[in-house]
Amino acid sequence: MGKNAIMGQSGGPTAVINSSLAGVIQGCRERKIPKLYGMRYGIKSLLGGVVINIEDHIKDDMDIELLKRTPSSFLGTCRFKLPSADENEEVYTQIFDKLDELDIGYFFYIGGNDSMDTVMKLSEYAAATKRSIKFMGVPKTIDNDLAVTDHCPGFGSAAKYIATTVKELILDANVYDTKSACIIEVMGRNAGWLAASAALSRGVDCDGPDGIFLPEVVFNVEDFLAKCEQKAKNGPVVMVVAEGIKTPEGKYVSELRSDMNIVDAFGHKLLTGASRYLAESITRNLGVKARSVEFGTIQRAAAHINSRVDLTEAFWCGSAAVTAAYEGETSKVVILKRLSNDPYICTTDTVDVKRMANVEKMVPDNWITAAKDDVTDEFIRYARPLIQAELTPFMVNGLPRHITVSSSTK
Amino acid sequence: MGKNAIMGQSGGPTAVINSSLAGVIQGCRERKIPKLYGMRYGIKSLLGGVVINIEDHIKDDMDIELLKRTPSSFLGTCRFKLPSADENEEVYTQIFDKLDELDIGYFFYIGGNDSMDTVMKLSEYAAATKRSIKFMGVPKTIDNDLAVTDHCPGFGSAAKYIATTVKELILDANVYDTKSACIIEVMGRNAGWLAASAALSRGVDCDGPDGIFLPEVVFNVEDFLAKCEQKAKNGPVVMVVAEGIKTPEGKYVSELRSDMNIVDAFGHKLLTGASRYLAESITRNLGVKARSVEFGTIQRAAAHINSRVDLTEAFWCGSAAVTAAYEGETSKVVILKRLSNDPYICTTDTVDVKRMANVEKMVPDNWITAAKDDVTDEFIRYARPLIQAELTPFMVNGLPRHITVSSSTK
Repeated sequence: MGKNAIMGQSGGPTAVINSSLAGVIQGCRERKIPKLYGMRYGIKSLLGGVVINIEDHIKDDMDIELLKRTPSSFLGTCRFKLPSADENEEVYTQIFDKLDELDIGYFFYIGGNDSMDTVMKLSEYAAATKRSIKFMGVPKTIDNDLAVTDHCPGFGSAAKYIATTVKELILDANVYDTKSACIIEVMGRNAGWLAASAALSRGVDCDGPDGIFLPEVVFNVEDFLAKCEQKAKNGPVVMVVAEGIKTPEGKYVSELRSDMNIVDAFGHKLLTGASRYLAESITRNLGVKARSVEFGTIQRAAAHINSRVDLTEAFWCGSAAVTAAYEGETSKVVILKRLSNDPYICTTDTVDVKRMANVEKMVPDNWITAAKDDVTDEFIRYARPLIQAELTPFMVNGLPRHITVSSSTK
Repeated sequence: MGKNAIMGQSGGPTAVINSSLAGVIQGCRERKIPKLYGMRYGIKSLLGGVVINIEDHIKDDMDIELLKRTPSSFLGTCRFKLPSADENEEVYTQIFDKLDELDIGYFFYIGGNDSMDTVMKLSEYAAATKRSIKFMGVPKTIDNDLAVTDHCPGFGSAAKYIATTVKELILDANVYDTKSACIIEVMGRNAGWLAASAALSRGVDCDGPDGIFLPEVVFNVEDFLAKCEQKAKNGPVVMVVAEGIKTPEGKYVSELRSDMNIVDAFGHKLLTGASRYLAESITRNLGVKARSVEFGTIQRAAAHINSRVDLTEAFWCGSAAVTAAYEGETSKVVILKRLSNDPYICTTDTVDVKRMANVEKMVPDNWITAAKDDVTDEFIRYARPLIQAELTPFMVNGLPRHITVSSSTK
């Protein structure tokens, strides 16, 4: 009998992170790996948490298809920063005792750069303790800020949701002939890939937003208001800002309106409210009626308008991780390699997980316009293939059907 | 030669108001009405504004199909309160001079109860001045608060968007096993139909929100926080509130957090921020991490996930208005009459526009649970048929294609 496999999801959920999980499950089944375990709430599962049998929940091909179409993390997730083994070896002992107990040979972790840090540390400890478990990372993030990979599963669907909704909101903003402003806030703390996606809304039937402001560019509130005033002369203004835009003094725009200063387990500040601050400033300083729209968590959960390219690639990354692990690779992460843009051809590869862990990839300078308030056609050529086609939800009783840990045992 | 027709849209846009416009256009074409005019920005079009030739923009069946799938108001809209003829007859002289100049015999106005007030006043003035123009109202509102009609075009698609997104956000909220709260704010100033729609998310794969708070029910902040505290013991809490919820003192919850007190042209207060106030209160008073999600204008613009039943009925209402006007009816509005719930059968009828103008329809008391924090199965039986099926957007280059006044002349 071969060794068993365990899989987990970590960090913020996306519309297609479960498609990667489906890819891992399918890959393991094809290789007849005897038992498949799922970590509930990420690595915490192995620290006194719950481990489930995947077979109890994902029983057949129909369940695989439902899983692909279910947003959020099926297994649950965590934001747990694994200490180094020097700091706290007990954590490692506990995790590896559990892995040994379950006779694990393959460990798959789907997550972002923080999660790749976990994969890296676990595989280093395994090597140090002479264990043969194969550790593989599967990339996911809506933010697209992972290094080495051409793009990241999760981004295409979020970009498609953002471009679609921005397009609809521009139509909505243009129904009145009076001066107005709509400031749309998109996720993106340091990297502006998601905000940039709003540019995809441009086409024969849509002029796109009047400005797109990325966290890569220093944000000047006065300049922004002046631009809004200028644009408002010709009708409604629609601006898109990333949540992480910062003033020349290095202060988040969202912080200008309150003293809240909350940090999460990774020391990241919780940001929200840049658009609200700007909309209030427009109303107050320019006398123009302004509203803000925050996409919030919807943009990472809106699987009802997914990108089929993204969903398929997410699945590939999952199954490629199994292939690599089965062939003996460890301490690696799957990446996407673009072979050609036109036609769009993309394949998977694996690289040392160290190259992705804790690194952030920004929108390149030369993809941002000289006026620093938009992106160039290079960005469009890069992103357009990633939002193509849809995998239609299974609509039941008027709504998309999903699969959850509790519903799948009913 | 017969008389010409003119059509306009008024009030806030919806995902299917253009499907009603498509119905009016199709109906007029079938009856060979010689010229079809469109009012840009509602009735303001006839007060020195712009009138367009529909034929220049909606040229063929493909344009009709695109129009059905385009959210927001194709012709533009206004919130213009028509004064009474006693107050200001000059407005009426100007409007009717323009209608006479264009040789209008049929006037179609797609809008909510404020717009029906316009239809009523214009038809009364036409009768008083012995003009034979037929005035017909076509109902639209996402709020579903129009009297007489069983339900209103625009509601089904908004309800479907809300139920779908609430379902996705509940999945998102459940990814962590830590205490958390997500407060979702839905439109609805006085009537809670949209907030109630969140209950449609319940099914074998979703428990639905932990509470739904309608503006029909007095809202007690302390009781709400106590409920959140109780629910948070078992995991993440998801609550849905209508923007118009009010304290026992009659104050909007959204007003508790600021002194803003803006009113629109109809004297309605602009509301937003109830969920933010409540999320901040939860974080502050209960020590539970809470976030707010406001659907904002997205819920009225999200045509990418429309209800085919809603979209089809919107079209019927438009074409039924033409039939009625052509057969000599005036000062009427089209309504939807439900003949049966299972199977769902619905038809159109016309009633005196006076019965709809300036009246609001609330969620009935007996459709609200005894605990006043949810809706009953009667609501589900009423609303479920209205969110069935989809009319798929035409996806071009990864995004839904729309038609606009400017793109349609290219």
